[in-house]
Amino acid sequence: MFHYDPALFTSSLTKSMLSVLPDAHEHPDINRFYALLKDYPLRGGKMLRGQFVLLSSVAHGANWQDALRVAAALELFQNWVLVHDDIEDDSDERRGLPALHKQVGMPVALNVGDALHVYMWQLLHEARHLPAFGRIFDEFVWMIQRTAEGQHLDLAWVQQGRFSVSEADYLTMVTLKTAYYTVVCPLRLGALVANHEPAEVITQAGCALGVAFQIRDDVLNLMPDVTYGKEFAGDLYEAKRTLILAHLFAHTSAQETRLAQEALAKPRQLKSQADIDYVLALLTRYESLDYAQSVASKKADEGLALLKDAFGVLGQGEAVRELTGLLESLAYRQH
Amino acid sequence: MFHYDPALFTSSLTKSMLSVLPDAHEHPDINRFYALLKDYPLRGGKMLRGQFVLLSSVAHGANWQDALRVAAALELFQNWVLVHDDIEDDSDERRGLPALHKQVGMPVALNVGDALHVYMWQLLHEARHLPAFGRIFDEFVWMIQRTAEGQHLDLAWVQQGRFSVSEADYLTMVTLKTAYYTVVCPLRLGALVANHEPAEVITQAGCALGVAFQIRDDVLNLMPDVTYGKEFAGDLYEAKRTLILAHLFAHTSAQETRLAQEALAKPRQLKSQADIDYVLALLTRYESLDYAQSVASKKADEGLALLKDAFGVLGQGEAVRELTGLLESLAYRQH
Repeated sequence: MFHYDPALFTSSLTKSMLSVLPDAHEHPDINRFYALLKDYPLRGGKMLRGQFVLLSSVAHGANWQDALRVAAALELFQNWVLVHDDIEDDSDERRGLPALHKQVGMPVALNVGDALHVYMWQLLHEARHLPAFGRIFDEFVWMIQRTAEGQHLDLAWVQQGRFSVSEADYLTMVTLKTAYYTVVCPLRLGALVANHEPAEVITQAGCALGVAFQIRDDVLNLMPDVTYGKEFAGDLYEAKRTLILAHLFAHTSAQETRLAQEALAKPRQLKSQADIDYVLALLTRYESLDYAQSVASKKADEGLALLKDAFGVLGQGEAVRELTGLLESLAYRQH
Repeated sequence: MFHYDPALFTSSLTKSMLSVLPDAHEHPDINRFYALLKDYPLRGGKMLRGQFVLLSSVAHGANWQDALRVAAALELFQNWVLVHDDIEDDSDERRGLPALHKQVGMPVALNVGDALHVYMWQLLHEARHLPAFGRIFDEFVWMIQRTAEGQHLDLAWVQQGRFSVSEADYLTMVTLKTAYYTVVCPLRLGALVANHEPAEVITQAGCALGVAFQIRDDVLNLMPDVTYGKEFAGDLYEAKRTLILAHLFAHTSAQETRLAQEALAKPRQLKSQADIDYVLALLTRYESLDYAQSVASKKADEGLALLKDAFGVLGQGEAVRELTGLLESLAYRQH
């Protein structure tokens, strides 16, 4: 009889990640490198994606222990991606501490991310005894390729200084960048661990929930009272294209658009508090955060309804209930 | 009967690399991303590492076609590593053209390298029908982990401003950073494709030859008359720790050491021609290039003698001759 124990899941995921990361080296500089590999993995976090894999595997009839390496490999993915993300966005903080490249410099941090990427494949390969391992491997490949495409859209629009990003563009970008690796693929991987063909509706449900999660993340970033491990308004400093900005620029006057885009287009270090405050005031005036919240809620409702269709038939009460609860908290999250 | 055709090998390697890279996408920005993935792979080059895999597989009794995906995956490795290397070193050029991050900005280029890394594993996984595929996968994991450690030493020493790098430190660094993925692992991978246990002497031979190659690379970088696709004295602008500098600082006076290290320690964009000329003059005075050349020649002689022991017994005349010839040209290269 399965009983969900979140603390057991997160400690098992951490242990599994650390099992492939090397402990010590006689050369002091390589020893230091080994410590850097563990920096982000040891910063904690809820490990939601890994938990989704574990719960989905149980929902599909497997033991969660069978899914552990696959789930922990997904968490290692999240870790190396965050190291590189923080470099790409030149973020200051991650999980309440300075970003890795702020501590050790960009070149060393970039290389740490590359090494973690390799350890991820090593850990995944340790699950090769699973009957559907070929499919699981292909799912990882597919997932990271889509994530990189979404990341490219995000970065290329900032790089090109392009603000004409429509709501449709934004949804394409976050489906690729966030929804696949956060919800769709974790749920599908759980099915594959149980040697079960993932239902097609999982993809639809996961896309809607993943998009809801990313929109909430964008909204939380602009709510000054919320502390969730990233700096307030960091997305404005980095001039991230979000649904919030897409809504804003569909409503501002020509002059407001020009002034706001001039403020956002400045390099991060040249942005003043007044620049940020100007954009924040416009967001309040046009209720762009409320609009984004409403889209997120609609997507969340839609995703959860589809999910109940997909998982309700599996007959694994506790796992399905916990999985649905976690996805609900993700899609409607307040912090 | 095997006949070595270098043009057939390089065109087959390119074709195999391109077989996993996507061609076109309806979204123009993702389509552009797909073109960027092919940028470095289409810049040509001799593809020596891929050729070593192919020739080693024939020397061990396989058909080169059986080794093609493994060899092409190694070439994809070289490509993503170069994209990231160029960012880490902030290099201006690669293979005679601007480095990728100079064309599209650091964030986009970093993400292109990550995506290429994934395509590498996809291509390797397409060789999973090979009987020793598990060993081949593990060899790739091991190879990239060692390369990242060597890269860390290289980057960390620059980052820390540390010039007290001994000849032994340098040899540790380049064995990890260059010798494994350039010679040792290609030769071992060829054996594994043929389902043959790699002889231990291959590792010794490959380390010596790989180190010889890297030292020659460092020397060529400081010879103004040589054009080999990288900028003259780029290693001094980037303050790379080399055997040449290790020798120099073992011979300079205290004042010369101080002046040279001050010049080298300046950020790249603050270095003047006079800074570089001062170091070049010291290198001439203390014959540090000649010394490095002599170490490279010794390593090359040692490696080739060991290699003849390892491959002579395999009885594949033409493949062994061509492989030895290529490794010889690598270890004694003049451009």
